[in-house]
Amino acid sequence: MTAYILTIGDELLIGQITDTNSSWMAQQLNLQGIRIVGKTSVGDVHEDIVEAVRYALSKADLVLLTGGLGATKDDITKKALADFFKVPMIFHDETFQRMTYFFKKINRTVSEMNKNGCFMPENALILHNDKGLAPAMWFNIVEERNPHSFGKGSKVVVSMPGVPYEMKHLMSDRVLPRLRSSFPMSPIVHRTLLTAGEGETSLAEKLNDFEDALPENIKLAYLPSLGTVRLRLTARGDNEAVLNEQLDIWKAELEKVVGYAVAGYGEDTMPVAIGRMLTKQGLTLGIAESCTGGYLSHLMTTVSGSSAYFEGSMIVYSYDLKVKLLDVSKYMLDTEGAVSEQCVKEMVAGTLDALNVDVAIAVSGIAGPNGGTPEKPVGTVWIAIGNRDETITYKIGINRGRLKNIEYAANTALNLLRKFLLQNVKAVEKA
Amino acid sequence: MTAYILTIGDELLIGQITDTNSSWMAQQLNLQGIRIVGKTSVGDVHEDIVEAVRYALSKADLVLLTGGLGATKDDITKKALADFFKVPMIFHDETFQRMTYFFKKINRTVSEMNKNGCFMPENALILHNDKGLAPAMWFNIVEERNPHSFGKGSKVVVSMPGVPYEMKHLMSDRVLPRLRSSFPMSPIVHRTLLTAGEGETSLAEKLNDFEDALPENIKLAYLPSLGTVRLRLTARGDNEAVLNEQLDIWKAELEKVVGYAVAGYGEDTMPVAIGRMLTKQGLTLGIAESCTGGYLSHLMTTVSGSSAYFEGSMIVYSYDLKVKLLDVSKYMLDTEGAVSEQCVKEMVAGTLDALNVDVAIAVSGIAGPNGGTPEKPVGTVWIAIGNRDETITYKIGINRGRLKNIEYAANTALNLLRKFLLQNVKAVEKA
Repeated sequence: MTAYILTIGDELLIGQITDTNSSWMAQQLNLQGIRIVGKTSVGDVHEDIVEAVRYALSKADLVLLTGGLGATKDDITKKALADFFKVPMIFHDETFQRMTYFFKKINRTVSEMNKNGCFMPENALILHNDKGLAPAMWFNIVEERNPHSFGKGSKVVVSMPGVPYEMKHLMSDRVLPRLRSSFPMSPIVHRTLLTAGEGETSLAEKLNDFEDALPENIKLAYLPSLGTVRLRLTARGDNEAVLNEQLDIWKAELEKVVGYAVAGYGEDTMPVAIGRMLTKQGLTLGIAESCTGGYLSHLMTTVSGSSAYFEGSMIVYSYDLKVKLLDVSKYMLDTEGAVSEQCVKEMVAGTLDALNVDVAIAVSGIAGPNGGTPEKPVGTVWIAIGNRDETITYKIGINRGRLKNIEYAANTALNLLRKFLLQNVKAVEKA
Repeated sequence: MTAYILTIGDELLIGQITDTNSSWMAQQLNLQGIRIVGKTSVGDVHEDIVEAVRYALSKADLVLLTGGLGATKDDITKKALADFFKVPMIFHDETFQRMTYFFKKINRTVSEMNKNGCFMPENALILHNDKGLAPAMWFNIVEERNPHSFGKGSKVVVSMPGVPYEMKHLMSDRVLPRLRSSFPMSPIVHRTLLTAGEGETSLAEKLNDFEDALPENIKLAYLPSLGTVRLRLTARGDNEAVLNEQLDIWKAELEKVVGYAVAGYGEDTMPVAIGRMLTKQGLTLGIAESCTGGYLSHLMTTVSGSSAYFEGSMIVYSYDLKVKLLDVSKYMLDTEGAVSEQCVKEMVAGTLDALNVDVAIAVSGIAGPNGGTPEKPVGTVWIAIGNRDETITYKIGINRGRLKNIEYAANTALNLLRKFLLQNVKAVEKA
């Protein structure tokens, strides 16, 4: 089964709103084994909506629309659908009753504009909305009877409000259950690995043979992000148990090929993966940040429960604070500068003491756009990771623009920390 | 001039990635007076890309594509474009030279796969990418010569990488300038105010008369965000100088009506606006963060030059560090708890001393999802702002989910700091 998502509203086309609805819907449909073949956003324009529905039905079995169902003048999805299906709009009394009941509860009366919102295309099956005023509408298109069914068998169009929590309620509680019962689907199964420290191209080269060996029903997708690449295996077939067995084997093979770059599984982020390592090794973490200005600490504390291993940080933006709080040598700052290998080493040592932690990270660099010199251009960042026995260092030398320099430095520090903790385990195992 | 945005990539259709590119592009095009008529996402499927380009060209003068330009097997946009234009792929030596130079700088050699990425459709004009490997491609379609030009005059297709910061660089530095010089557009002029601390509805009520009085050629847009609303005046006409004069008058009027809520101008963010106030008042800032975990410091340090007023922060996630670094009373922590008005007050005092700053912010709360109690449910956050004479406090009591709680607390702290600095000025003026 294939699906097409249509999001409707002028606000999407002027960039005022980032469309988060369609990625959520795509995730939900994917988990059901429904493949999305495309997504389109159009404005609140009658002909554009009609044309988009027609196009979407030519590409997929299921068309999901969101938006344009309010009671204001510019919300015209319902009328466009009625015209598309060549049916009249009729007053839906049950929706009006529900609306009246809702307004009574908040001590308001139904306005004429709200009442107008109760007219629905005649062929719509109404799916009640428990979180808002506008219900969803389900349209069955049976091929023999309707010229808009292009493929084999029957097709479905569903229209939902664009308010995210109303749409999520309607998808989860009305649309997906109805889809499952109307169209028994073949299973789809996923396995995702989070990899760190290797680029997409380098992974793809390693995985050339692996990809060639994959059976027809399994696909590998690369989902790169800053410093990490997710590898997602997706299998389709008739029997879910068989698919799971099959995928477990290929996932194990994938892990073998990728090796130490595997940092986590499923929806794991790097901070989650690192948190798990720290917990397992019984270690606490402290951070000293200069150029990253708190962003690295923020990443670590996006994780619920991070207080179990994350003690705290020093954001030492000024020279004075580096000396005062982390006992960095004033002489070294004057001779080597704050952006130097020696400085981040001393920052690590100072952090281990000041925050009383087992492992410390220190980051110091020139985020830019100003502050660069010929010897230390903007983008130069030194990172150190250490415990009381050992400190490793790393230098970044590429300028990506201030915010990206900050993000990249923080993500690189996470990768280095992961590497350090891996070696730490090996060192402990050896000892 | 009209535009259509195409985003390409399977990752968009499985919902793994939320498409933020297209809303940013829509904003930029809007500022140039280019109207977006639709946006479509398709997967890495040859025919789907070709068909989407054809469809988009039938709807708009300018088609912007992002994504599918990597060197891996599933990135096939270039081949699809070559087939669409019925031209061969040719090796682009300059791109290869740039790639070789880039890899040399990071001590790596160009792989065969990377080298394959240097083949480009023959009719592509290459726009160099200073932030990544894949350049943008610009295709001119002259109506008389090409069957794909549906409207009047010539059309343009531009293909860019999907990595947001590469796309933004290419749009800002290559594509938009080229568009401006290739297609002289009627002038459009903007003035934007950043407002803080007032909701959209409250502003709209204040601005009722102002909006009624606006001439036909000027529009006011409300662009709400977390804790701030941008007010954007847009004027269209024939003469840019006249428009600028006209807009300056209306902007001054707008400022008068909005009053103290005006925090900044143009692309100013709250941290920029606050940085300006701190600089003007000659004050230094220090921060103590618990639940926000570094995010507030990160916001302050997104600003280039923030080291002039931002000294540093203490991220005190653990009880121990609150006591050790900020001299918060152990007894108070045991009786009132870390999430209390008293605690953030003591954190402010400790920060003023430990970081030796003029003004300090302290934030402590329960970001969740765990750690809530009946008296202090998840979402409870205390904020304090103070100098050596005075400290103000504020409590947040709504749970929006962990990440939103962190973001909301940090943004609320920025609003409070702005208020504190405004009062500070008035107090100084009075004295």
